[in-house]
Amino acid sequence: MRTKVSLGIDIGGTNIAYGVIDKEGKCVMTDSKPIKLFDTPQEFIVSLHQEIEERLATLDADLIGVGVGAPDGNYFTGTIEHAANLNWKGRIPFTELLRETFALPAFLTNDAKAAALGEMIYGGAKGMKDFAVITLGTGLGSGIVVNGQLLYGHDGLAGEVGHTIVVPGGRACGCGRRGCLETYASATGIKRTACELLAKENAPSRLRDIPYNEISSKMICEAAHEGDAVALETFRYTGEILGTALANLVAILRPEAIFLQGGAANAGDLLFAPTQEYMEQNMLFLFKEKVRVLPSSLPSNAAIYGAAALVWNELKQS
Amino acid sequence: MRTKVSLGIDIGGTNIAYGVIDKEGKCVMTDSKPIKLFDTPQEFIVSLHQEIEERLATLDADLIGVGVGAPDGNYFTGTIEHAANLNWKGRIPFTELLRETFALPAFLTNDAKAAALGEMIYGGAKGMKDFAVITLGTGLGSGIVVNGQLLYGHDGLAGEVGHTIVVPGGRACGCGRRGCLETYASATGIKRTACELLAKENAPSRLRDIPYNEISSKMICEAAHEGDAVALETFRYTGEILGTALANLVAILRPEAIFLQGGAANAGDLLFAPTQEYMEQNMLFLFKEKVRVLPSSLPSNAAIYGAAALVWNELKQS
Repeated sequence: MRTKVSLGIDIGGTNIAYGVIDKEGKCVMTDSKPIKLFDTPQEFIVSLHQEIEERLATLDADLIGVGVGAPDGNYFTGTIEHAANLNWKGRIPFTELLRETFALPAFLTNDAKAAALGEMIYGGAKGMKDFAVITLGTGLGSGIVVNGQLLYGHDGLAGEVGHTIVVPGGRACGCGRRGCLETYASATGIKRTACELLAKENAPSRLRDIPYNEISSKMICEAAHEGDAVALETFRYTGEILGTALANLVAILRPEAIFLQGGAANAGDLLFAPTQEYMEQNMLFLFKEKVRVLPSSLPSNAAIYGAAALVWNELKQS
Repeated sequence: MRTKVSLGIDIGGTNIAYGVIDKEGKCVMTDSKPIKLFDTPQEFIVSLHQEIEERLATLDADLIGVGVGAPDGNYFTGTIEHAANLNWKGRIPFTELLRETFALPAFLTNDAKAAALGEMIYGGAKGMKDFAVITLGTGLGSGIVVNGQLLYGHDGLAGEVGHTIVVPGGRACGCGRRGCLETYASATGIKRTACELLAKENAPSRLRDIPYNEISSKMICEAAHEGDAVALETFRYTGEILGTALANLVAILRPEAIFLQGGAANAGDLLFAPTQEYMEQNMLFLFKEKVRVLPSSLPSNAAIYGAAALVWNELKQS
């Protein structure tokens, strides 16, 4: 019997990654291209179609659909709308273009929602009906699953947990307001916290020799592993803010588990331990010690799995 | 053709109210009894069954099911569990008792979730698939509807918006923590705010002559209507806390509208105006001026409508 496979596309600011994955999570091909190679989305789609056709001809597999995860991707309309960090501008009818070229069902959602589906179909959330995935990258994205379905809200844009205000009057956020969760809990937030602590504390730190623009959350993670006091306190504080926010999220949603994905989640216990600790400390008694904060169990190219999972999820439901 | 009707029961700390309501919201009978008349839930149910049988015999109506809204009611188990303010103690298998006596489908949920269904089936949320109902009584309850379904979470206890912490280290809450939304935004919260302002400000106020235990949110409302500065500032502050919290709730859920029900919502514009104002002021740009804060359009015995609506909602889905 020929295997059924799904094509998952992850559109990032720099690269477009894609992969062909079967229902069990076996990735039969994967690749990545710089987005700047393509002046228009049409150019990319035509080139991708040709590549996939050629590759599938050598495989015993039938492509059943195309799924896309994209920043500012709107599930309801299938469009990518004015994504701040893409060089394709305006309102792009992405699923329409895919359907025309591939003659297959095509679906699109934002990257954090795709991440949640990836976790549900292929990862640690298999069998869960209520959970949340928090992606800690440049910002904080979230994909929330309620009763087995993604939470889209009235216009497809629900799940902006990163833009809940957790410190009134706090750090300036890209959204124009102050104190949003993502200004504290994200790769950028971790860097901002480290910088704040360099100013506030007198402890020696290797971070004092690196310009702000060059500090990364990965460097802070390495410094913490070497015992750097500023770096260690940075992760404790990040966990305090994130854990406290997650306790409030649990009071509203009562998920079975919360998964942390994305670059900053690679800090592992440095981040997970204080996050779980402050979440429990601030948790309503009803939910104490009932909600796990878990790492993703997906491969490092999780976003492709999420995009491919969108197809399985949609075709299951129809 | 005989009319189909549903029996809705609202179990409160003092009274049990019930009513027989058709799908269009016509209430064909309603009554209320002090809960202390019944030593056990069985006694109440047998007495209610007899009364309803007699009343329905005179009406051209078929009862299709029984719905119950109760504090600490658990939808998944159909039980009322250790409700702090009921004189029936322990774990009460309420829907089981109802099914045995009425020989009809019976459903139970907590009072705020029933309120949301009442708004969806009979009230202003007709046709909406994503909305929230906030009940402002002694505490703050919430019923959240996502994609046309009540948000129950992993164990049926989701929707504890009243227990999200909005002022870290703030007012002591009945849940054992500090700064929960319901310690500010509820009838009790309004009274606490007034008391705090009596201490903080020097403005004359008629509230200064009333002991704390006798002040009610209704009195504060009346004082505000007479221009009492402390009472007016009480409602502004309540709206600031509630509106800011609702902006965060919108970022997560993106509802079409938020309904405020319950005693404290009777303050009308005194509460609605600052709530909407501070919600907009703190709203993520994506959702600005898109989410309405609305009063309930249900009759004053809204809780009975909510309980009756549970039956229509369940039988529709099965």
